[in-house]
Amino acid sequence: MAFAAEGMWTLDNLPTDRLQAAYQFTPTAAWTNRMMQGSARIAGGCSASFISKDGLVMTNHHCASECVDQLSTATKNYMQDGFLARQREQEVRCPEIELNRLELITDVTSQVKDATRGLQGEAFKAAQNEIKATLASACIGKERETVRCDVVDLYHGGRYHLYRYHRFQDTRLVWVPEKDSAFFGGDPDNFNFPRFDLDIALVRAYENGKPAAISHFLPFSKNGAADNELVFVTGHPGSTQRQLTMAQLDTIRDLGLIGGLLELAELRGVLEQFGKSNPEAARISEGTLFGVENSYKAMFGELTALLDPALRERKLAEEAELRRYTAASTALASSVGPAWDAIAAAEQAYRQLEKPYVLIARGRAFNTTYFETARLLVRAARERSLPNGQRLPEFTDGKLPELEQQLFSSAPVYPAFEQVKFGFSLTKLRERLGTDHPLVKQVLGRQSPEQLAAALIGSTRLGDLAVRKALWEGGQAAIERSDDPFIRLALAIDPAARALRKDYEREVESVVERNAELIAQARFAQRGTGDYPDATFTLRLSYGEVKGWEEAGQPVAPFTTLAGAFERDTGVAPFALPASWLAAKPRLNLSQPFNFSTTNDIIGGNSGSPMVNRNGEIVGLIFDGNIHSLGGAFWFDPRLNRAVAVHSGAILETLSVIYGATALVHEIRPD
Amino acid sequence: MAFAAEGMWTLDNLPTDRLQAAYQFTPTAAWTNRMMQGSARIAGGCSASFISKDGLVMTNHHCASECVDQLSTATKNYMQDGFLARQREQEVRCPEIELNRLELITDVTSQVKDATRGLQGEAFKAAQNEIKATLASACIGKERETVRCDVVDLYHGGRYHLYRYHRFQDTRLVWVPEKDSAFFGGDPDNFNFPRFDLDIALVRAYENGKPAAISHFLPFSKNGAADNELVFVTGHPGSTQRQLTMAQLDTIRDLGLIGGLLELAELRGVLEQFGKSNPEAARISEGTLFGVENSYKAMFGELTALLDPALRERKLAEEAELRRYTAASTALASSVGPAWDAIAAAEQAYRQLEKPYVLIARGRAFNTTYFETARLLVRAARERSLPNGQRLPEFTDGKLPELEQQLFSSAPVYPAFEQVKFGFSLTKLRERLGTDHPLVKQVLGRQSPEQLAAALIGSTRLGDLAVRKALWEGGQAAIERSDDPFIRLALAIDPAARALRKDYEREVESVVERNAELIAQARFAQRGTGDYPDATFTLRLSYGEVKGWEEAGQPVAPFTTLAGAFERDTGVAPFALPASWLAAKPRLNLSQPFNFSTTNDIIGGNSGSPMVNRNGEIVGLIFDGNIHSLGGAFWFDPRLNRAVAVHSGAILETLSVIYGATALVHEIRPD
Repeated sequence: MAFAAEGMWTLDNLPTDRLQAAYQFTPTAAWTNRMMQGSARIAGGCSASFISKDGLVMTNHHCASECVDQLSTATKNYMQDGFLARQREQEVRCPEIELNRLELITDVTSQVKDATRGLQGEAFKAAQNEIKATLASACIGKERETVRCDVVDLYHGGRYHLYRYHRFQDTRLVWVPEKDSAFFGGDPDNFNFPRFDLDIALVRAYENGKPAAISHFLPFSKNGAADNELVFVTGHPGSTQRQLTMAQLDTIRDLGLIGGLLELAELRGVLEQFGKSNPEAARISEGTLFGVENSYKAMFGELTALLDPALRERKLAEEAELRRYTAASTALASSVGPAWDAIAAAEQAYRQLEKPYVLIARGRAFNTTYFETARLLVRAARERSLPNGQRLPEFTDGKLPELEQQLFSSAPVYPAFEQVKFGFSLTKLRERLGTDHPLVKQVLGRQSPEQLAAALIGSTRLGDLAVRKALWEGGQAAIERSDDPFIRLALAIDPAARALRKDYEREVESVVERNAELIAQARFAQRGTGDYPDATFTLRLSYGEVKGWEEAGQPVAPFTTLAGAFERDTGVAPFALPASWLAAKPRLNLSQPFNFSTTNDIIGGNSGSPMVNRNGEIVGLIFDGNIHSLGGAFWFDPRLNRAVAVHSGAILETLSVIYGATALVHEIRPD
Repeated sequence: MAFAAEGMWTLDNLPTDRLQAAYQFTPTAAWTNRMMQGSARIAGGCSASFISKDGLVMTNHHCASECVDQLSTATKNYMQDGFLARQREQEVRCPEIELNRLELITDVTSQVKDATRGLQGEAFKAAQNEIKATLASACIGKERETVRCDVVDLYHGGRYHLYRYHRFQDTRLVWVPEKDSAFFGGDPDNFNFPRFDLDIALVRAYENGKPAAISHFLPFSKNGAADNELVFVTGHPGSTQRQLTMAQLDTIRDLGLIGGLLELAELRGVLEQFGKSNPEAARISEGTLFGVENSYKAMFGELTALLDPALRERKLAEEAELRRYTAASTALASSVGPAWDAIAAAEQAYRQLEKPYVLIARGRAFNTTYFETARLLVRAARERSLPNGQRLPEFTDGKLPELEQQLFSSAPVYPAFEQVKFGFSLTKLRERLGTDHPLVKQVLGRQSPEQLAAALIGSTRLGDLAVRKALWEGGQAAIERSDDPFIRLALAIDPAARALRKDYEREVESVVERNAELIAQARFAQRGTGDYPDATFTLRLSYGEVKGWEEAGQPVAPFTTLAGAFERDTGVAPFALPASWLAAKPRLNLSQPFNFSTTNDIIGGNSGSPMVNRNGEIVGLIFDGNIHSLGGAFWFDPRLNRAVAVHSGAILETLSVIYGATALVHEIRPD
């Protein structure tokens, strides 16, 4: 049963009855279409919105910070100083941002299911890959540069939908505030509230060298969000695990979260101390450290939820109920009944496979851009020579533009920093598999992790864009001729890595997917099709209200103000407001609402989502959730789970008064 | 039910029937007495044995490594080079090693239970502290320097025994090999097998400036351990949790292990990277890093065990069975029946208290020697002015000599390293309690963790022994006059720290102890008194056999040889044999057994324990367990759990051939 405000709804299946009953609001087709066209996805993992007819795009600072880092140097630090293009000519291209705007949803469930009917294991995966590639390819047609199509698995195999996006690869940085304002409070305040962050970035989509013309953008509202107001969030929640079986949740707890957190924690310590060695080390590692700390806190919140006996009890009860329903149904008992045990067996198989699979097949043992690049080049050479439907899915035609964008990025790579990450991950390889494991011996030989990392990074040329281009264009022959040590390593380990991936697909993934399809079928039979699917990094709408909550018996007010930021300022990072703020303080409307909390159901990936009112006008910019929202991976607790946003009024006020960006303010709100 | 070889038996309650039945061996009183007198405890947390009439003591390198570190300097590195006193005059005093030899066990159960009868909460803790202090004090009498007495809580309140020890505080370093041999294989091989470590240290107990005369030492056997031989280990296992309730195990899993591991992992990363900044940084931090890595691996093994569904199932079944037995007994049902739920409620209370309790009351937020010293001085000033029975237990008369030894240690303290640890722990204080917690604000004020750490460490004088002495001797007045910033911090936080400790004792500890006493009573009623108690860092005997095991279907041989070490040598740490080994190789008996595995039931604290044969002759030196032994905290799995020891023959062979320590060899084995 969905609670009030619970739900990440696909735009073709909105909960109109509930909205009408609770708020006397029924979204029209035009309203829904404008929300869809005004929303955008950043392919790397965030959400965004179009906010002007000239392609201006709003997202979070932390969604564009990789670009800000990539454009910075030791002497020109946009993370620290912020960035503002006062004219369009000053807008600078981000090397790796791809924007996707959803244009069309097509149900392809029957095509996908027909293609895989009766198949298991490798045959199932092969057929599934092929039909997905074929459908995507037909959808893209000849418009490879501007169209992206993905087959989306909804309800864990209950439905397959084809999502067609407009693809923008020329995205330029327009404005970011200083990181000290965007991420005021730093890691200590992350996922906490009250909050005082101007976590915004403006970029602009270009097409053919000109600002993209956008007909359906989302206009800013006049006043922004008010207390208790009905608000909507359209964005791309990355992934939730609300409909998994207990066996899957136990794997997530033990391996994904506990194992993952332990490795992140140690890497975090390494990065913290590395950053203290000198200011340039701090600068080049801070983006990675932020990512690690952010993931750490999110995963820790998820683990806390999974260790909560109340959650466990509820999940067990839900699973037992669905299994009872299935067992009692003559249509389902024999076909679906065994699905839970089959998944549990696959999870046991995964526990056996996990270490080498994650380290070698997923590449966690080789944590450096150089290896990622090398593996990509090595595999692309072989995969691109195969027919589209027979390739590894990440090398199908529809995926290549994003991959090429990353591969040919002009972003700087810092060898000293790569060496720290790579040496660390090799050490973990040896620690986790043991000194005597054949794969450890193959990788390390008689060298120590540190020696190997230094040797490879000392002599690789993959940091050179021309070298990468030549290897990409030269195909298999160029790869085989290459003496680059990372190409040699990626080649040498590839047979083992591919074999482990096959094992995983055969023993685990295909079994889970096959049986999850069956469970989805039982759930539809039991509950109808009025539920929302787990998040899949595709466009969803969530509704909710501006509202605080009660923390340990004390009310938490939903709004903070600009004044609060000055009160919290200590002058020491991460609680130091930038000089621009201190200078502008006398002119600011200090009672302007700054950040606020709402009951919207969001999750990681929603960062940068627009928040709109009934009229489809922007009233806020999602950038975080409170600490309780992290349990949202597994359930939605309406008493405690809150989304956190920047108030639209604070965006206009600071842009105008602190940053003097008059032209942007006028572009966003022409009146 | 105890499995074959399971058990850490107190020396007054040996499993003689089982030994006779399985091995036709019955320990005589003389045999048991010699084992007791030949065994020793290192008060800091290890085991040892007396191996000559002149006070020579054998333990592990890793049990004496803190001393080796403390005696080393930037130019005189005994960790790297090893240490050998060729004459007694060259033996150097270890600043902080206290040896204890058990001399007498007295049952004081009735005195302790009488003193606390009918009491709960604070009154219970106060009465318990007082009777323990009184009993210990009477036992010590006037021989404060050479006698130590502790009341030991066995079977979680089932029995209270008074242990009287001979105390040796003048312990001098005699011999350690190079760390590259003592800890060959380093962290990757730690808790693994096959193994090739000469993890031994020889120290000597002195009394009145002369080698202590030891009548009951343990002689070395001629040949050392043989395959399948019956062997005994006498040592001081630190702590096991085999008889706790499920609610207690859940707390250990969630807070102690997961929470503890995450913090250790991050600190480990910090230390690893700190050690890479320069060779001296590596030297001064390597002991701490070893401790962190060792604890990490041990705790990870414990967590793995607690996440094992088989263990959980067995524990649940055992608990259910004892509860059924209790409910069915008219004598126990009403008195003992509610004990499990009472403990569960106390564990829930602990979950609420845990963060500030661990950070502030246990001092985890202040991870620096300076703060430990400051808190100790601040509290000692007040506590020593109280009657013995009313003091915090760690300041009672019987505890003062060990405390003074640490406080007045000549061991060096390195401010730069202290600053790293302290800054890190302050960051965790803010992270775990949150920026706005009153205790965080009290500690940090408007400073960042790094600023505060730098400021305090920059101006403290507690590194100066004379300053510490003056503060100790000056009592409360000197403390109040002191402007040392760590004394000020410890004073300022003490009211909150003591209040949190009181909360913990009242809401958690006293409830758990009271109800554990009841459960122990039920267990005695059900099973008699023939069981062994959980480990308590007191002398225990374990019996077992020299034996390998099966790992994933493959047999693991119980012995390695000296030849194996040379085969594993790569020349790169931690797999680099020292030069002394390479030079001596041609003269070594390479087929000499080196390390070996046995079925003895041991746990952390047993490090350094002697392993003897039926005749009470040393055949090995415990230094580790295999990876499966870590689950021994909660259960004993006879198929997989193995202890790991250095073979006595390898000790004699290397001491003689590699290190040329002829006099020591002769002292150990005069024939």
